[in-house]
Amino acid sequence: MISYHDIVVTGGFWHELQARNQAVTVPAVRRRFLKTGRFAALDFSTLWEEGKKPHIFWDSDIAKWMEAAAYILQKERDPALERAVEEAISLIEKNQDRNGYFNSYFMRVEPEKRWQNRDAHELYCAGHLMEAAVAYYEATGRDRFLHCMIKYAAYIEKVFMIERSAAFQTPGHEEIELALVKLYRCTGEARWLRLSQFFINQRGANGKDAPVYSANQSYSQSHLPAREQFTAEGHAVRAMYLYCAMADLALECGDEGLLNACRALFVNITEKRMYITGGLGSSHHGEAFTFDYDLPNETAYSETCAAIGLALFCRRMSALEPDSRYADAAERAIYNCVLAGVSEKGDAFFYENPLEIHPEIRGRGERFPITRRQKVFGCSCCPPNLTRFIASYADFLFTRHDDILYVHHYTSARTEHIEIITEYPREGEISLRVRGMAGGRLALRIPGWCENFHCGMPGTLDRGYYYIDIPDDDFALTLTLDMPVRLTYADARVYGNTGRAAVTRGPVVYCMESIDNGDNLRALSIAPGAQFTGGFDLLECNGHRVEEQGALYRFDSPKRVSQKLRFIPYFRYANRGESEMAVWVRAEGV
Amino acid sequence: MISYHDIVVTGGFWHELQARNQAVTVPAVRRRFLKTGRFAALDFSTLWEEGKKPHIFWDSDIAKWMEAAAYILQKERDPALERAVEEAISLIEKNQDRNGYFNSYFMRVEPEKRWQNRDAHELYCAGHLMEAAVAYYEATGRDRFLHCMIKYAAYIEKVFMIERSAAFQTPGHEEIELALVKLYRCTGEARWLRLSQFFINQRGANGKDAPVYSANQSYSQSHLPAREQFTAEGHAVRAMYLYCAMADLALECGDEGLLNACRALFVNITEKRMYITGGLGSSHHGEAFTFDYDLPNETAYSETCAAIGLALFCRRMSALEPDSRYADAAERAIYNCVLAGVSEKGDAFFYENPLEIHPEIRGRGERFPITRRQKVFGCSCCPPNLTRFIASYADFLFTRHDDILYVHHYTSARTEHIEIITEYPREGEISLRVRGMAGGRLALRIPGWCENFHCGMPGTLDRGYYYIDIPDDDFALTLTLDMPVRLTYADARVYGNTGRAAVTRGPVVYCMESIDNGDNLRALSIAPGAQFTGGFDLLECNGHRVEEQGALYRFDSPKRVSQKLRFIPYFRYANRGESEMAVWVRAEGV
Repeated sequence: MISYHDIVVTGGFWHELQARNQAVTVPAVRRRFLKTGRFAALDFSTLWEEGKKPHIFWDSDIAKWMEAAAYILQKERDPALERAVEEAISLIEKNQDRNGYFNSYFMRVEPEKRWQNRDAHELYCAGHLMEAAVAYYEATGRDRFLHCMIKYAAYIEKVFMIERSAAFQTPGHEEIELALVKLYRCTGEARWLRLSQFFINQRGANGKDAPVYSANQSYSQSHLPAREQFTAEGHAVRAMYLYCAMADLALECGDEGLLNACRALFVNITEKRMYITGGLGSSHHGEAFTFDYDLPNETAYSETCAAIGLALFCRRMSALEPDSRYADAAERAIYNCVLAGVSEKGDAFFYENPLEIHPEIRGRGERFPITRRQKVFGCSCCPPNLTRFIASYADFLFTRHDDILYVHHYTSARTEHIEIITEYPREGEISLRVRGMAGGRLALRIPGWCENFHCGMPGTLDRGYYYIDIPDDDFALTLTLDMPVRLTYADARVYGNTGRAAVTRGPVVYCMESIDNGDNLRALSIAPGAQFTGGFDLLECNGHRVEEQGALYRFDSPKRVSQKLRFIPYFRYANRGESEMAVWVRAEGV
Repeated sequence: MISYHDIVVTGGFWHELQARNQAVTVPAVRRRFLKTGRFAALDFSTLWEEGKKPHIFWDSDIAKWMEAAAYILQKERDPALERAVEEAISLIEKNQDRNGYFNSYFMRVEPEKRWQNRDAHELYCAGHLMEAAVAYYEATGRDRFLHCMIKYAAYIEKVFMIERSAAFQTPGHEEIELALVKLYRCTGEARWLRLSQFFINQRGANGKDAPVYSANQSYSQSHLPAREQFTAEGHAVRAMYLYCAMADLALECGDEGLLNACRALFVNITEKRMYITGGLGSSHHGEAFTFDYDLPNETAYSETCAAIGLALFCRRMSALEPDSRYADAAERAIYNCVLAGVSEKGDAFFYENPLEIHPEIRGRGERFPITRRQKVFGCSCCPPNLTRFIASYADFLFTRHDDILYVHHYTSARTEHIEIITEYPREGEISLRVRGMAGGRLALRIPGWCENFHCGMPGTLDRGYYYIDIPDDDFALTLTLDMPVRLTYADARVYGNTGRAAVTRGPVVYCMESIDNGDNLRALSIAPGAQFTGGFDLLECNGHRVEEQGALYRFDSPKRVSQKLRFIPYFRYANRGESEMAVWVRAEGV
């Protein structure tokens, strides 16, 4: 893998996103975390204010924000940002228990309950702190935070692996497993890899772990040993973080059992349990996977963090074996569900990302996803997760295996041997220049959605990658991925989508909003053979609207009038006030 | 109105239903009420068994069953049934408070809380007991129960109208208002009519009534004075019972304000808030009306009692003014939602009547209506309501205004001047014979669904009734209502139903079940111009099934295969085990 560390994003789509992230989102999340007492919770010397008692999730919120800050600081000095991170580190260092334990909730609110409740997110918070510490060390070279977290990891190793004195064996919310792999990679200490393996191996294979949230062990992926899990079950975010760690260990340890499980899980997710937006989790009930083809649009949970988790899992799978399906799925998640999680301005967030919104049905009093992005949530995992994800996006771009340089994703960026210039995903033309790799090979991902591509170079297409022999040490080529607007259809078993189509262009899924199309989107349909005009920001095609007919029920076939239909990228929905929204639109003749 | 008392149902559809009701349903409900302690609760001399503490609704359950028994006993002696009713009456008589109060819950469980909680259904239970007492007196001439209830009514008059000593002014659950009109009609005592008027006039017009269930006064129709209510709001059953009483008082008192409100409410319900099955209440949340055109299929509440209430309201409106829309709506409710409430065998019941069922989505853990009829419910209002409704159905058939005999509904029946023989709704041919009415007029309802009818007699069609001068004292004619199978479409604002049609024939709405059509009903569609074959029990037409396509998402237009589609009457759904069900089916070319 070629790390974000060694890559500069030079322009285009992701440069804009990262600039917004740095200028708006990271400060906005910090302000909200200051205001809600999250930063103050690290300072044990003051009492908390009314209503600002530390929450069991809070350390992880702070940690993800710190991790984002680290990624930004690696690229560009920002003394104020650095100071904010250093202050948090100082408080953690100061308040960390002598034995290594650190948790602002359990140290301050319920000290007697440490390691008692499997669902209390202690190891989850610890994992996020470890990820942040590694990122900060790699960004700045300063190791104070890293040493705190090594000490914490050693304490966790003692409690869980050696003494086994906790009330549970594996975390109710996975995350530390992948963090420990990062700690291993950063320090070279094999004990952290072994601790990660311990948690993975114990999962679903010990008599000590109580079910969390529901009576069903599958909620926390504890229903079976990891190597026997072949269908994605339970809480979608927990599942994704687990699968990330499984893929990491498959790579680090050559663990075939874990690799097989990861492959099966990937297939189950992407062929049966994933929204077209890359969203995961079909129900708010448990924020969970349900069953094959159960992908309701209006009540989709589809948490931003789960789509981030899917992208992270796919990135690891791409590193394990060259198969474009992994990057295809990552791309689907990133350009749709993940980016929908943050507002156009960058300061408001969705936790749930439904595929259809009818604001007025909330008047029923039943539970539906919210329809406007919020500045912060009580459980505010998604906003800081977005900040760190966007800041470290370059991690997705390249891997190198021996003499093969893989390009998994396209954006304007450069690293040691390659430079890319493109407006992707706005258009499919990609200029590449490869230096100092004569005799090696370039492997360009041809996305699954792309039916025609051109690059003027002979090559071999294998599992979605186009392999080209690099002829000399300064080699330029242009890859053009044809990116027409297409109607996409779901399998008939996705029962809400029969008779409907989604408008897609390249990796981007589009949606209609009533602000562009008038109220009652379900009355609209795409005309047979409709041609699309417009560009990335707005697509138009011919369609019809069923007219209101006066009588509630009647025998006369409904009358239709012609109407131009307008579509915007799904990830931009709900940026112009409350509006109906629909991804899946009735398609005539289907 | 010509009472069921003076009508004999002689054969055909309703004779079969009433026979099943008498032979199966009434005994089955009694057995369940015995088993659950409902009858025993009337006996204050014994302690209740574990888990059988009287419930605040129970008196009303028993009362509705007693009312059904009375209707049956009016037609046919049944000593065992009579004894069961008499035993209950004896217990009520014995345990009634000296002051007239009777409530098996508040006398036994919380005696200090009488008349304190507006939502505790005391006046609702009292109303049902009064209805039962009137029915039993009219059936048997025995007045013991009636006297108990007159005493109770007098006590209620004292507490609510004279002393105003209760913690509330009007009941949280309406019902007593219509019962008091029955008591007035039975006894001729105007004070009961005045007491009913008092409750209606005070509703939404006093400072004493607290909101019930939710903070919203509209839940119990207390948001406005009755005469200012023009849209159906809140709990659907409560609303219907209120509107029944408003219509009763409009008739008895010539109250134009109430009549206007009733007309507006009827229009709002039938043109904007009613399922095609006559079901009412779009959400389980409050078991309530929501807003115009909000009629979701899978999560419909559509309580059996609300459809019964709609039929009862419409019957009263038919008596107020000759307009077939009232009987049309009653018929829609009766032949669809009401009859769906009871199983084919007659011993199991639905409380909620959704228009679409996907049994597997219950696996999400979210709330959906149950998919199999139950023998009894914790709150078991619907089963005994069905027993009394079916037993007294003849009340719907005829009214007489001066020299005009109105026939509102068609079934084989006879009364003083008319005899009808028909297999309606199985077929549209109706033989009528009118005796002793030469010079008078016969007004035959031509249902709104009927586009062609024939009767071989000149006449005048006015607001859905065909008026014929009766030529002599023994006059026979055959009315034929053409009853082809029709596709019915919903207004485009019913957003779940665009692109779909419902199969209807006469008043009967049909549905598909997966047991007849294979799994995944949403993959099926009705072919354009499809012709239907078969009869009342089973209709068939040509259609298509979208094939499963392997990939979850793809660009290829879905492939379809031809499939014969099979439809059964909606009211017979869920009688052959758990099955998918759908009323609204995708219609090609719509």
